[in-house]
Amino acid sequence: MSVIFLKLSWGGDPTMYEHYWQQVGEKTTVVIRGWQHMSYFSDVSNICWFLEPELAEEIARVHRVVGNAVTEGRHIIVGTGSSQLFLAALFALSPRDGPEPVSVVSQAPFYSSYPSMTDCLKSGLYKWAGDAQSYSKEGPYIELVTSPNNPDGNVRRSVVNRSEGTLVHDLAYYWPQYTPISSPADHELMLFTVSKSTGHAGMRIGWALVKDQEVARRMIKFIELNTIGVSKDSQLRAAKVLKAVSDSSEHGGTWEGVESFFKFSYRVMAERWKLLREAVNSSRIFSLPEFPPAHCNFLNRVFEPQPAFAWLKCERDIDDCESFLRGHKILARGGKHFGVSPKYVRVSMLDRDNNFNLFVKRLSTIHL
Amino acid sequence: MSVIFLKLSWGGDPTMYEHYWQQVGEKTTVVIRGWQHMSYFSDVSNICWFLEPELAEEIARVHRVVGNAVTEGRHIIVGTGSSQLFLAALFALSPRDGPEPVSVVSQAPFYSSYPSMTDCLKSGLYKWAGDAQSYSKEGPYIELVTSPNNPDGNVRRSVVNRSEGTLVHDLAYYWPQYTPISSPADHELMLFTVSKSTGHAGMRIGWALVKDQEVARRMIKFIELNTIGVSKDSQLRAAKVLKAVSDSSEHGGTWEGVESFFKFSYRVMAERWKLLREAVNSSRIFSLPEFPPAHCNFLNRVFEPQPAFAWLKCERDIDDCESFLRGHKILARGGKHFGVSPKYVRVSMLDRDNNFNLFVKRLSTIHL
Repeated sequence: MSVIFLKLSWGGDPTMYEHYWQQVGEKTTVVIRGWQHMSYFSDVSNICWFLEPELAEEIARVHRVVGNAVTEGRHIIVGTGSSQLFLAALFALSPRDGPEPVSVVSQAPFYSSYPSMTDCLKSGLYKWAGDAQSYSKEGPYIELVTSPNNPDGNVRRSVVNRSEGTLVHDLAYYWPQYTPISSPADHELMLFTVSKSTGHAGMRIGWALVKDQEVARRMIKFIELNTIGVSKDSQLRAAKVLKAVSDSSEHGGTWEGVESFFKFSYRVMAERWKLLREAVNSSRIFSLPEFPPAHCNFLNRVFEPQPAFAWLKCERDIDDCESFLRGHKILARGGKHFGVSPKYVRVSMLDRDNNFNLFVKRLSTIHL
Repeated sequence: MSVIFLKLSWGGDPTMYEHYWQQVGEKTTVVIRGWQHMSYFSDVSNICWFLEPELAEEIARVHRVVGNAVTEGRHIIVGTGSSQLFLAALFALSPRDGPEPVSVVSQAPFYSSYPSMTDCLKSGLYKWAGDAQSYSKEGPYIELVTSPNNPDGNVRRSVVNRSEGTLVHDLAYYWPQYTPISSPADHELMLFTVSKSTGHAGMRIGWALVKDQEVARRMIKFIELNTIGVSKDSQLRAAKVLKAVSDSSEHGGTWEGVESFFKFSYRVMAERWKLLREAVNSSRIFSLPEFPPAHCNFLNRVFEPQPAFAWLKCERDIDDCESFLRGHKILARGGKHFGVSPKYVRVSMLDRDNNFNLFVKRLSTIHL
């Protein structure tokens, strides 16, 4: 078990949520017959012709219910996970026929896949340019703002703030189990995904909310050239799951005998962070970020962020936290992948109970 | 109806197959519960860790049953349609750190999306270099061999034949409803898709059969960076549909009261090509390619290819066949998109019965 545990924790597989969906039972079961949904097309009246209307409706509804993003006056674009939408955004926002590739930046520590995704094909349109805080070049640029941030959980704003910049807001973790929802996000281009909101990573369904029609058109063009649309089967399943999230939220306390989705997931995250902080405090070898508490309009309570990843720092004279933890059978991704010091590592907080408990247990028994 | 008809026919939506799957009934129904298949991972023991084992098994089986491709000693890689696998192949086959982008060529007429897919991101790894027949540059190149060819239905072999070339065989149409299966294809890198084999375009499921392990690894890496894997829901549904194709084929004549998949689809294609050739012959304005008959080992009969697209040529002094047909309410894609003369157009043969019949009726009433 431990090898698989290590691999999954390393990447952030959100299997913690299986338990909730088991309790919900058959309400989110999808049944698709052999002759259904065979066409490439979902809605020829929509500029995003491969977006299932049911999914579009449930995306708008869940944001309305949770209050975490404005959808009015936005184009909804579905993608094969938010990864594909991130690439579509780079394509759409790059100046056409620019003299050189546009710089793509993000404040460190940043999502470890941004540099390799950006530079994978050595595109002449865009190019990874590293930490946004030290970026000083003139001319157009694209800044990626992940908030709450992966890996460290902090609330983020753009830092470059120059006139020729365009922003991509990756809001994968802006949900009430992870962070207080202070107001509906209202940016030009926002990315979300079911992987981190409901835990259905295997569906590969993400969505973008895009204000500008021309940017939306170019993102859609990219998805046409990349994969000619997005799995209809997963779109229909995502619609059903998001509907359950909204239904359960609107029922407040319990929903046909089941706890509401965000109450369940908030509670599990709160328990896990409590356990993790206890283990870290007892070890005296590690530290964790501290977050200021804030009011969540959705849960109507004040709480401290409880991110999907723990951004653990090795204190004392341990310089390579990843190697140190590997020696104690804990596989974590080192700070260098995120553009910062190897004294940091990222650990997933979304694994199954058994694996999470094993991680905390191993961590708490480490002594120097 | 006619606007939608035109749009769908233009792109080749394979809705013709709905009728068969309705007859099959509930045998290919998939039921997926809310808590199932949530993880990113499908099989951590496979280098293609996002490939569902059931799908891998049914892919190998259907090729064995049909005899159209060798799967022994190959890595199976699943993709979000064969489009994604085409891009993954370009990434995997491009020389790393080459002095300039490798040339990508294909014999004209070629699939109209190859140039735009290849050049979409202005990659420094590869670059579209046009018709393979006029390609004369020294050094490494990638040749795309589509057989049977889209748009013209011809059986194709590589034409450049120089030592530094690598080949991608796009075999989307190498199935017995379209062309005689003369022998199992046995190339280094072969692409297939459910869109054209079973008609399930909306699933976005394709697969590659790849001999070289390092090439397979790089293709998998590309799909990780592009979409972090492929929809599990659609993979499971594709497995069920391919199983039905194999089951129905192994039963020979009928399968629990239903005709076998390839007998049905061969019969429909044969009828459609007969109707189309009659309409074309009566008009005297158009011509169609003629194909030599060949023996099909799978159907055990001799027949002429009956491709998924009609490659129609305007005779006489009509120079722009696409515009000419648009004037008669038939939307077809002109030859220029495929690297050849505008006297040609491509029309889908896979639309629903009503739309196909409308197309043939409109075509047969055109007189100069």
